[in-house]
Amino acid sequence: MKTIRIETTNHAYPVLIGSKIINQLPKLLIQTGISQKTKILIISDENVAPLYLQVVVDQLNKFDAISYVVPAGDVSKAIGEVEKIITYAIQHGLDRSSVILALGGGVIGDLAGFVASIYMRGIRYVQCPTTILAHDSSVGGKVGINHALGKNLIGSFYQPQFVLYDTSFLTTLPTREVRSGLVEVLKHGLIADRQFVDWLEKNADSLLHLDQEAVSYALKQGIKIKADIVMEDEKEQGIRAILNFGHTLGHVIETLSNYQYLHGEAVAIGMFFAAKLAAKLGWLSKEEEAFYQHLLQKFKCKTSIPKEYDTNQMMNIMLRDKKFKNGQIRMVLPIAIGQVKIEQNIDPKFIFETLNELKR
Amino acid sequence: MKTIRIETTNHAYPVLIGSKIINQLPKLLIQTGISQKTKILIISDENVAPLYLQVVVDQLNKFDAISYVVPAGDVSKAIGEVEKIITYAIQHGLDRSSVILALGGGVIGDLAGFVASIYMRGIRYVQCPTTILAHDSSVGGKVGINHALGKNLIGSFYQPQFVLYDTSFLTTLPTREVRSGLVEVLKHGLIADRQFVDWLEKNADSLLHLDQEAVSYALKQGIKIKADIVMEDEKEQGIRAILNFGHTLGHVIETLSNYQYLHGEAVAIGMFFAAKLAAKLGWLSKEEEAFYQHLLQKFKCKTSIPKEYDTNQMMNIMLRDKKFKNGQIRMVLPIAIGQVKIEQNIDPKFIFETLNELKR
Repeated sequence: MKTIRIETTNHAYPVLIGSKIINQLPKLLIQTGISQKTKILIISDENVAPLYLQVVVDQLNKFDAISYVVPAGDVSKAIGEVEKIITYAIQHGLDRSSVILALGGGVIGDLAGFVASIYMRGIRYVQCPTTILAHDSSVGGKVGINHALGKNLIGSFYQPQFVLYDTSFLTTLPTREVRSGLVEVLKHGLIADRQFVDWLEKNADSLLHLDQEAVSYALKQGIKIKADIVMEDEKEQGIRAILNFGHTLGHVIETLSNYQYLHGEAVAIGMFFAAKLAAKLGWLSKEEEAFYQHLLQKFKCKTSIPKEYDTNQMMNIMLRDKKFKNGQIRMVLPIAIGQVKIEQNIDPKFIFETLNELKR
Repeated sequence: MKTIRIETTNHAYPVLIGSKIINQLPKLLIQTGISQKTKILIISDENVAPLYLQVVVDQLNKFDAISYVVPAGDVSKAIGEVEKIITYAIQHGLDRSSVILALGGGVIGDLAGFVASIYMRGIRYVQCPTTILAHDSSVGGKVGINHALGKNLIGSFYQPQFVLYDTSFLTTLPTREVRSGLVEVLKHGLIADRQFVDWLEKNADSLLHLDQEAVSYALKQGIKIKADIVMEDEKEQGIRAILNFGHTLGHVIETLSNYQYLHGEAVAIGMFFAAKLAAKLGWLSKEEEAFYQHLLQKFKCKTSIPKEYDTNQMMNIMLRDKKFKNGQIRMVLPIAIGQVKIEQNIDPKFIFETLNELKR
């Protein structure tokens, strides 16, 4: 079992990674000061619950655990769902000393963490991620839900008590989810660690086939990179913004496709868009741009924008993105493999052109 | 102008009190690092807006200010209202650098502060209280809304950039609101400062007639007491709970009366209930109990519970209160004038009896 310690201003917590470590859950709860008398609300979704809810409930047989299952997918990151869970929690007597356990992927982590952050002005929560993608969202304390007008517009910064990552839960993931999750691992390499990028390129096949050894290493490295950045800038005042690499256009594609594109699938296109734009601005060589395409294709990712998407509409959605300050266009662009920078003043003309060039 | 500085773990901010100081608003914004380019969303209600919204808008004529007016009263502390404000904010281009300005009483402070705490994971907000009651809610960072099953069950701890308290705004308050607000001032005296209680008893009439000098002093003292307690215990792990003095039964009465009782009116009954219970337990003398009644009556407060309220139902609502830990009944009870203590193990029998004795 690998342990990474995350330190934030007010709170430190461990992320534990390993195969078949769910049986450590009761011990970890006790160590965290969560006694068997504590009421625990497990929040999961309709995909994960049939596979792993009973496994977790069995581990908690000495605790006062109840569960709530939401529909799978981004549709549950909604204010209506938050309200339903809170009603359920009140009706079942959750108080300030109670605990929420998120069992699922990024959506469940974001939703359950947000509920924990606002229920009775904040109760404790723990995370048991069940996807590769969740390696990203389970570190950094960003929790939240979507608004009809855009993703993640409602939320908080709120840290879990611990994250327990049982990699054996990943083996039931659909192929597309595996690929989508690995894109965020790629992202972590591409923003901060050239060596890790080279390792990823060499191990693409093992990772796509969920070799447990390779996956464990990749998750650990990805989490480490993210944790280092988050520790430096908890509230996203500066450097942390590089974690949004590929996400500006990524969110646009998710929105316009009505979430038919998975998060990682959309971010892959967003990263390639950033590379192409950087090459156009002269910050990235043509060879490096080509390496981006090669790497993403090795991980079976598309790198083009559906040709029916209106470029002006994409621009408008980007301008509404909360990552833009005072209406200025602000983007994370690569300047080398394993290195990015934040740019405030990009001529919208280049963005427009690059979007058009990517359409196919 | 009086200034009190509030220090919390992550954040320090001033509370400024004085008559006709609203013209200090632009200067204060600039001093806080809020430039004239910043988008400011003023949130107010249908009672306050006709009186003071234009006054504030005029002060902000060099800023990019917009406003949103909600119905007056606790009915606006609802998730539906939060959603509407957020939609309005997105549509009007509020981004992470924008600011929310709460112009109103406690409801507006709680609602606007909560919206600020979850909009794009938290944006800055400032408060311009327009009621006496708001002297309480504007210090301490407790923001939030109600749930159909209970008050303040959804919320955050979130601190404003500053509080600007123009006491000239208080002169348009209805008499019942003045009385209700003064109850929270009384509460601050009764939990922590015997001398202040004696001053309040002597100055009851001036305060009820809104003598500006007396009101300014009372607000300053009340805020100081609250600030000292809040600075000691920001997240209500311990001592801060004494601020809930009178509120356990107070919330029950607000709920059962469907908010026909104003907050302070209900808290006054709650404080007298606590005094009577403390006297029954032998912690308060009969004379002190009588002083409580005398003091509350001097401030024109009722001290009885409507006889039609069902005692069992009141007990059940109290048990669901988030101030109870692990299902235990936990109350703040006076042990002298100007002194209270938190008690964990009160025999429900005494609570039941005292409730019955207060019915009239």
